[in-house]
Amino acid sequence: MTAAPKKIILDVDPGHDDAVAMMMARIHPAIDLRAVTVVAGNQTLAKTARNALLVAEAIGLACPVAAGMARPMVREPILAGDIHGASGLDGPVFGEPALALDGRHAVDLLIETLLASDGDIAVVPTGPLTNVAMAMRKEPAIVEKIERIVLMGGSYQLGNVTPAAEFNICADAEAAHVVFSSGRPLVMMGLDLTRQALCGADVVERARRLDNSVATLFVELMEFFTKTQREVFGWTAPPLHDPTTVAWLIDPTLFETKAMRVDVELRGEHTYGRTCCDYFGVTGREPNAEVAVGLDVPRFWDLLIDCLALYGR
Amino acid sequence: MTAAPKKIILDVDPGHDDAVAMMMARIHPAIDLRAVTVVAGNQTLAKTARNALLVAEAIGLACPVAAGMARPMVREPILAGDIHGASGLDGPVFGEPALALDGRHAVDLLIETLLASDGDIAVVPTGPLTNVAMAMRKEPAIVEKIERIVLMGGSYQLGNVTPAAEFNICADAEAAHVVFSSGRPLVMMGLDLTRQALCGADVVERARRLDNSVATLFVELMEFFTKTQREVFGWTAPPLHDPTTVAWLIDPTLFETKAMRVDVELRGEHTYGRTCCDYFGVTGREPNAEVAVGLDVPRFWDLLIDCLALYGR
Amino acid sequence: MTAAPKKIILDVDPGHDDAVAMMMARIHPAIDLRAVTVVAGNQTLAKTARNALLVAEAIGLACPVAAGMARPMVREPILAGDIHGASGLDGPVFGEPALALDGRHAVDLLIETLLASDGDIAVVPTGPLTNVAMAMRKEPAIVEKIERIVLMGGSYQLGNVTPAAEFNICADAEAAHVVFSSGRPLVMMGLDLTRQALCGADVVERARRLDNSVATLFVELMEFFTKTQREVFGWTAPPLHDPTTVAWLIDPTLFETKAMRVDVELRGEHTYGRTCCDYFGVTGREPNAEVAVGLDVPRFWDLLIDCLALYGR
Amino acid sequence: MTAAPKKIILDVDPGHDDAVAMMMARIHPAIDLRAVTVVAGNQTLAKTARNALLVAEAIGLACPVAAGMARPMVREPILAGDIHGASGLDGPVFGEPALALDGRHAVDLLIETLLASDGDIAVVPTGPLTNVAMAMRKEPAIVEKIERIVLMGGSYQLGNVTPAAEFNICADAEAAHVVFSSGRPLVMMGLDLTRQALCGADVVERARRLDNSVATLFVELMEFFTKTQREVFGWTAPPLHDPTTVAWLIDPTLFETKAMRVDVELRGEHTYGRTCCDYFGVTGREPNAEVAVGLDVPRFWDLLIDCLALYGR
Repeated sequence: MTAAPKKIILDVDPGHDDAVAMMMARIHPAIDLRAVTVVAGNQTLAKTARNALLVAEAIGLACPVAAGMARPMVREPILAGDIHGASGLDGPVFGEPALALDGRHAVDLLIETLLASDGDIAVVPTGPLTNVAMAMRKEPAIVEKIERIVLMGGSYQLGNVTPAAEFNICADAEAAHVVFSSGRPLVMMGLDLTRQALCGADVVERARRLDNSVATLFVELMEFFTKTQREVFGWTAPPLHDPTTVAWLIDPTLFETKAMRVDVELRGEHTYGRTCCDYFGVTGREPNAEVAVGLDVPRFWDLLIDCLALYGR
Repeated sequence: MTAAPKKIILDVDPGHDDAVAMMMARIHPAIDLRAVTVVAGNQTLAKTARNALLVAEAIGLACPVAAGMARPMVREPILAGDIHGASGLDGPVFGEPALALDGRHAVDLLIETLLASDGDIAVVPTGPLTNVAMAMRKEPAIVEKIERIVLMGGSYQLGNVTPAAEFNICADAEAAHVVFSSGRPLVMMGLDLTRQALCGADVVERARRLDNSVATLFVELMEFFTKTQREVFGWTAPPLHDPTTVAWLIDPTLFETKAMRVDVELRGEHTYGRTCCDYFGVTGREPNAEVAVGLDVPRFWDLLIDCLALYGR
Repeated sequence: MTAAPKKIILDVDPGHDDAVAMMMARIHPAIDLRAVTVVAGNQTLAKTARNALLVAEAIGLACPVAAGMARPMVREPILAGDIHGASGLDGPVFGEPALALDGRHAVDLLIETLLASDGDIAVVPTGPLTNVAMAMRKEPAIVEKIERIVLMGGSYQLGNVTPAAEFNICADAEAAHVVFSSGRPLVMMGLDLTRQALCGADVVERARRLDNSVATLFVELMEFFTKTQREVFGWTAPPLHDPTTVAWLIDPTLFETKAMRVDVELRGEHTYGRTCCDYFGVTGREPNAEVAVGLDVPRFWDLLIDCLALYGR
Repeated sequence: MTAAPKKIILDVDPGHDDAVAMMMARIHPAIDLRAVTVVAGNQTLAKTARNALLVAEAIGLACPVAAGMARPMVREPILAGDIHGASGLDGPVFGEPALALDGRHAVDLLIETLLASDGDIAVVPTGPLTNVAMAMRKEPAIVEKIERIVLMGGSYQLGNVTPAAEFNICADAEAAHVVFSSGRPLVMMGLDLTRQALCGADVVERARRLDNSVATLFVELMEFFTKTQREVFGWTAPPLHDPTTVAWLIDPTLFETKAMRVDVELRGEHTYGRTCCDYFGVTGREPNAEVAVGLDVPRFWDLLIDCLALYGR
């Protein structure tokens, strides 16, 4: 007897790696994807919502896709166009999306879905945490209904968008503070982990050989992403950040995590949005997150390829 | 021919002086009160919402009353129980409210009402700015629809809840930042102004002689408020903060204002929530608020008494 | 029998009003001026030191004059050339100074003088607090030797150099924090007080009629200072900030003060250098300063004129 | 022909690893140690100054040893007694020091030595940067006289005393800001580097076999240090932080460095004292430090053992 598939809401800002997270969540039998909520981040909300619909169509997604927050809770918006291109999903050629957005605001879809649940849905944000934090604040009763948060964001070592901070957290650090201080179980896939998931030419080649339409989309996305990650950060292979969240939900044995207290810096001059992770336990405070520190790299790529292969059946 | 009455949404956290603002807005012919939205502040949302219904009933209010944000956007909640008592409206004896809250969340009521408007509604917050800021962020399209914001909050001289900050701003400074940086016309009734509106025994006596039920409620509220303001701050007569907003909308000639740049401090160690008002224009930045600096005290009390008298007709 | 004259070290950055403080301290029999230490502030150290020598010569000063800190402890320098002119003491025509600076650094002169004392010397800073704070940190043993600090700086209402902060504190807020947290008795003459000391044409006229060389220098200084204070801040008569410190030491009955906790803001985005004064006692913390709140204006000007008159005898 | 030995001033807060830095600097022919200045840090100034004299005596040091700053420029003191024990140098048994401190304050010794130099002296701080920053501020003319600063402090990945910050920087971040923003060439040996210098039992054993008095002192120091680093941080072998500075001056080929912009965070709530190092160059700002990123570990230990062996000749 196997466990029931894990119910999740995926909160995304596609974004190349968000798209890959969607691919995995849609197809893997261990995951029951109930809704996709979209937030501004890698690009404007208009673009990330459009991209979410295009990916949803390409992967045959049936659940609602709702657009949410167009800008951060407090700070001025920042985008990541240098990494993801003008569309936020440059590389593949898309037509106009055939699917339509759900009529509800993503914040309200999150609230309704969680309130109606048995407390068994994990929330999986792979973009700025604006939608999730707004929902938590608009309806505090949802907090206890969230089974767990598994997010991509932060870093306990080097940042990317600033020397101290990672993009998803820095793009709305106030929202991140709301989420990290919510008291719910939280798994953090930070840059320390995702920089171990460098998607090399061998992985892309394995995907290419699968020769199905989703695998081909993956290949096209990676070709663009490889180029910009090399130009901006010098990576020879791009870190595939967001899919690590879905991978952890499918098979946590791929990861080594460590319980840490994580505080989000809101006031620093050079450190706004840093996730201060108490790796050595020097603060004496209770951990509020399982922070991923190690990845079984070969098995992670095997899982990704397995997911892509499922689209061909 | 007189001008059409001014349409407003009153956003309150009653609160003794909020109640008085409601009394004035409900009855004065220059005001067309379209909705009352309620926020946590002087007390918890459960209490301020209940108080809003009790006051609405007492003054015969017909428009919707909706409950909104139960806690600030980012920071931990603070309350003002020392000033307003355990119920948030201590003094009068109330039964259970007969009126019911509107089914909508205050944030959504604000959004719907403003989107449906012709851009002619003023938003009048007399509590923390959480409802208004959340609405602005959830639906950015409402910002341009707000005719003007006339708020009670802030100070360019002394604070009250801290040496630097006034309660409504300090209770949710991030929300205040959202509102002050929204680009909409804004009138700020800060402590500098409201400390000129010290509601002395003579004013209370004039109200007592009106001998109608709303005037009597006013008297009972002031008796409690006089006591706590004296005990906490040493005022011999309590500053009647919130009604100044409605008074300005009825008759701006009661006030002297000065255009200033106002920035809300979010990062200070001792100054979180201070409204930094550029009184002397030393920053060279464009004003974003008309800050009230002077009050025609006798005419202000006359207006208040006139409003209370209207309930007796 | 009269009390022995009060021993003081005057720490200045002349500056028009610093010069007037020197005039009063040099001549009044209640004051025993032991040293003048000079700091950068109203102008660069080269200029303020030169100005101190010029004023010392003009008033017949016998004690050592030593140059000290050329820049703030931590922050980048700011100057007040708009108020005090290119020389820092524009208005009168001076030649080259005949007096020479003491060979010691002001920080070391402060340390040596205080260590050698019986704990009966008041330190009277009328500029940024860099010299005093550096001395306190370099030789912590002097702290207990300081009888009292009587300083011009700060504000509990409006700032001047920024909406929140006064020049002397803002010019080196870290130094101000060191001094305010030193635990020594401290009298603060902030803008709230000094804006009551508006030096009108009548005062200048009274000085002019004294017809001695120091009074004439005072008149020339005030003519320039009146002009710049009007242009920058709109004052019709200039606030004569610094002499209030010496006046308090001569006759504290000219002043009303109130014990308050004062914290200097070091971290704020808009409030760096604000003196957060707990006027209403809301923090519940112990006062660390007597903050001047009221001035007997006529008697203050009488005292100033009396001092100037003494030069003619 | 060999180069002239490198003139240095060593600024220390001994401290076990400071003591080892002194051992290397005293004996290696490539180094000309001109002065040792002492600062509070690992323990109080009374203790670190005493420890410096004890080590100086043990290693036959001839240059002046001067005590300096007893506390940080601005913040309240923190100490590192958990790592270095109650004396700051627990482990070996010392008697009373026979050597005496130089009569000058370390700040003045730094100023005098540098002003009298030809600009060829490197300043090598291995404790909090209070002495160096105070000297730079008291006499700005020394800044241009410093050939280079080679310091132990900071981190671009994990901190130690807080999740974000390393002890030497966090203990006086304002001083660190002064030094990092001084414009002088600067080499930073942060925790990222020094955590590669884990002094294992094999290194201690090699030292033990040298069988001279300084090597024996090294062994005794390491036995204590190994124990506390394991208990507090979980290291099986202790990082030997401070000697890396002297090692770089002797042989920079042991190190890989990378030019980075480094900003010290002074305002953060969770990040005070973090050295924000722009590893990826995302800020676009000019580098102000060569940050050590890699260590040739075997050759580093060889150099250390070589230095200790020199004492036996």
